[in-house]
Amino acid sequence: MVVAVPTAVNPTPTFHYDDAGYMVVEGVRVRDIQDALGEEASPFYVYSKAQISANYEAYRAALDGVDAIIGYAIKANNNKAVVKHLAGLGAGAVLVSGAELRLAMEAGMDTSRTVFNGNGKTPAELRAAVRSQCLINVDSEFDAAHIADAARAEGLPANVLIRINPDVDPEVHAYVSTGLANSKFGIRNSHLQWFLDYIRDAGDDVLRLAGVHSHLGSTIKKVSIFKDAADIMLGFVNTIREGGAAPHLRYLNIGGGLGIDYERVGEELPSPADLINTIRPQLLAGGLTVIMEPGRSLVGNAGALVSRVIGVKTNGSTRFIVTDGSMSELIRPALYDAYMYIAATEPGGETGVFDVVGPVCESSDFLGKGRSLPLPAEGSGLAVMDAGAYCHVMASNYNMKRLPTEVLVDGDEWRIVRKGQTYEDLMLGYEGLDV
Amino acid sequence: MVVAVPTAVNPTPTFHYDDAGYMVVEGVRVRDIQDALGEEASPFYVYSKAQISANYEAYRAALDGVDAIIGYAIKANNNKAVVKHLAGLGAGAVLVSGAELRLAMEAGMDTSRTVFNGNGKTPAELRAAVRSQCLINVDSEFDAAHIADAARAEGLPANVLIRINPDVDPEVHAYVSTGLANSKFGIRNSHLQWFLDYIRDAGDDVLRLAGVHSHLGSTIKKVSIFKDAADIMLGFVNTIREGGAAPHLRYLNIGGGLGIDYERVGEELPSPADLINTIRPQLLAGGLTVIMEPGRSLVGNAGALVSRVIGVKTNGSTRFIVTDGSMSELIRPALYDAYMYIAATEPGGETGVFDVVGPVCESSDFLGKGRSLPLPAEGSGLAVMDAGAYCHVMASNYNMKRLPTEVLVDGDEWRIVRKGQTYEDLMLGYEGLDV
Repeated sequence: MVVAVPTAVNPTPTFHYDDAGYMVVEGVRVRDIQDALGEEASPFYVYSKAQISANYEAYRAALDGVDAIIGYAIKANNNKAVVKHLAGLGAGAVLVSGAELRLAMEAGMDTSRTVFNGNGKTPAELRAAVRSQCLINVDSEFDAAHIADAARAEGLPANVLIRINPDVDPEVHAYVSTGLANSKFGIRNSHLQWFLDYIRDAGDDVLRLAGVHSHLGSTIKKVSIFKDAADIMLGFVNTIREGGAAPHLRYLNIGGGLGIDYERVGEELPSPADLINTIRPQLLAGGLTVIMEPGRSLVGNAGALVSRVIGVKTNGSTRFIVTDGSMSELIRPALYDAYMYIAATEPGGETGVFDVVGPVCESSDFLGKGRSLPLPAEGSGLAVMDAGAYCHVMASNYNMKRLPTEVLVDGDEWRIVRKGQTYEDLMLGYEGLDV
Repeated sequence: MVVAVPTAVNPTPTFHYDDAGYMVVEGVRVRDIQDALGEEASPFYVYSKAQISANYEAYRAALDGVDAIIGYAIKANNNKAVVKHLAGLGAGAVLVSGAELRLAMEAGMDTSRTVFNGNGKTPAELRAAVRSQCLINVDSEFDAAHIADAARAEGLPANVLIRINPDVDPEVHAYVSTGLANSKFGIRNSHLQWFLDYIRDAGDDVLRLAGVHSHLGSTIKKVSIFKDAADIMLGFVNTIREGGAAPHLRYLNIGGGLGIDYERVGEELPSPADLINTIRPQLLAGGLTVIMEPGRSLVGNAGALVSRVIGVKTNGSTRFIVTDGSMSELIRPALYDAYMYIAATEPGGETGVFDVVGPVCESSDFLGKGRSLPLPAEGSGLAVMDAGAYCHVMASNYNMKRLPTEVLVDGDEWRIVRKGQTYEDLMLGYEGLDV
């Protein structure tokens, strides 16, 4: 039997291979975690604390000399240990639901450094956001009215950012493009004056215009479009200032959306420094505090989904590796046709080309197609890389699969930071009912 | 204000409108359920018990004179009250995970009338399936070996069906097409003899060939392809019988997959009777017990997701209705580009054309595009119809949204048959951990 040692996984320094061909996260072999957790807790997510720190530091260093809030987009990965760690590093947060706000508070976030976003905030969520003095983005006419209602009900002013559509094409999948004129997000720019009037008329004890906000989309690979958007946003800031008093105007929120190297073919992607240097003149020009909203680029490459191989089969001209990981735990390939790099976590047999699929009963249940991998033994591990963002958060119980365990590695140590579900957890909704 | 009364929703007799223009399920106004549950339990799923009964009866009547098991595909909707109701009507079940097996047993299913399917069954699941004397489909060489291992470990024979790929194109979305030669499901037909030999060699106390199985796909609208598949399957049965003793061969499993009228434009879709009459000669020819695996056609049109309107906005040339229902609760439109009919549950203003979107922070979060609907008041209800199958089961906690409440209507009564999640439920995985 040929023993193929997996090739190096770049460019995440915290995920690498030891001399025996086993994948190591920081100082811990993935196989050791897998053995300790056992079959019942398979598949599982593993995150590298050091990688999250490094990703955060790249933003912090790039923003040196700029008054800024790095607002972590919790929707990318809401594991409490991850949120706590980023709060400890100094991050603020971007929130999209009342539950995320509650989690951010429990994780020790300073809520005055959080932005509450969304095109469909409910009255209850808005009251909580006002109470916590989050910055709140104004997404539409009805949203402005609901925010004002919440402020009046709480007897506190709401500090709002107007979400403008710069109508700049981010050149990404339509599902993650959010800043075009026909998007469901943001205001009609032609109505900007209506919003300024509305905020002024509501009165300083109800609505305070704290800034402007744009968000182009996600998985962006070209920083020049951020420059285009920043120019447009600064134009709006000047228009607002020329229009009269905007005493609370302080924030320029340029959103998030930096892509990561999912393909791992060594593509040169822009770094946070590239992004920020592209717009540094604009950031400094307005005398404003900059808000950034990174999610994927802070946590994406810090995580992997580790599955166990159930078997290998051939049908027609296709060879399949069947794993216990599936679209239930990780839906990005099925939902966005997203490419995610798949790596063996230990040596295997002769290298071949495989479709990697899960056990879920439909053909959309694949993790990757046409992947070159060493022939794996049953029970061996396969890692879907770059699964730190938009993976566990989108997991479902489809086929009655249970949400997977999450593990955080810190140097030579690892620990469970969220337990996987049990069958009993799936039955909780029936408690006390005659069903 | 023009008051537009919603148009009739066909062809589900159990969902209709009363004279005042309110949607009624059996004898209960949707608005009354919505008011009773309140904003915190919005959106919610509502199911009609009578519709499920009617759908089951259509299969039962069509199978009159045929020895058959109607095996409900629990993966379509695993609500325990739904499974119990179908068990009470006489249904068997099709299972795709150990958790589904456990649920079927708790719901009172006779496990000897269940089929355990799947291309990636785990050792633990197979042992449970053998213990419960489920019929077990053999999906691959490795699966045959694993089933034999489980039978030996349990000291009980496994009754197996060989899953054959008839290689008939079901003419549906690639994600729900499962019977082609390059599918991840089923055996290589050219290897049929290998499987027959393997089963024989394992011995009668380990593996018993109980039948053959095919499954073409899902959302199928043409019954002639079932005839093609049945012909091919009967050919295999004859080959097996000619090849020698097959003393336990008793079942012909023709799978499921009948489509439903998601578009609700009055399209004439084949009924269970159409399907079964097409293949009646084949069903009777072999002297076999027929297994059918309907899911969508038993429960799909018996359910709806009822959301609350948060507001209406316009961007560019598009008008949006923003609801609290989203891709987190119902991902079919985003995942399969599936069309699902959307109906107002109460009268509204002037009819217009709207995109119906949720509050989740990405552009894939839509429920329907370009829909003609009465302008809804804030807080009024919108129902995504035909959401009884493959909707709640695929729900996620994306954006920290909570799995929605499920309600079952029975005549003039309704009750909660699964409670929606709370914030505390989302935090259960941290219990006992230092996070």
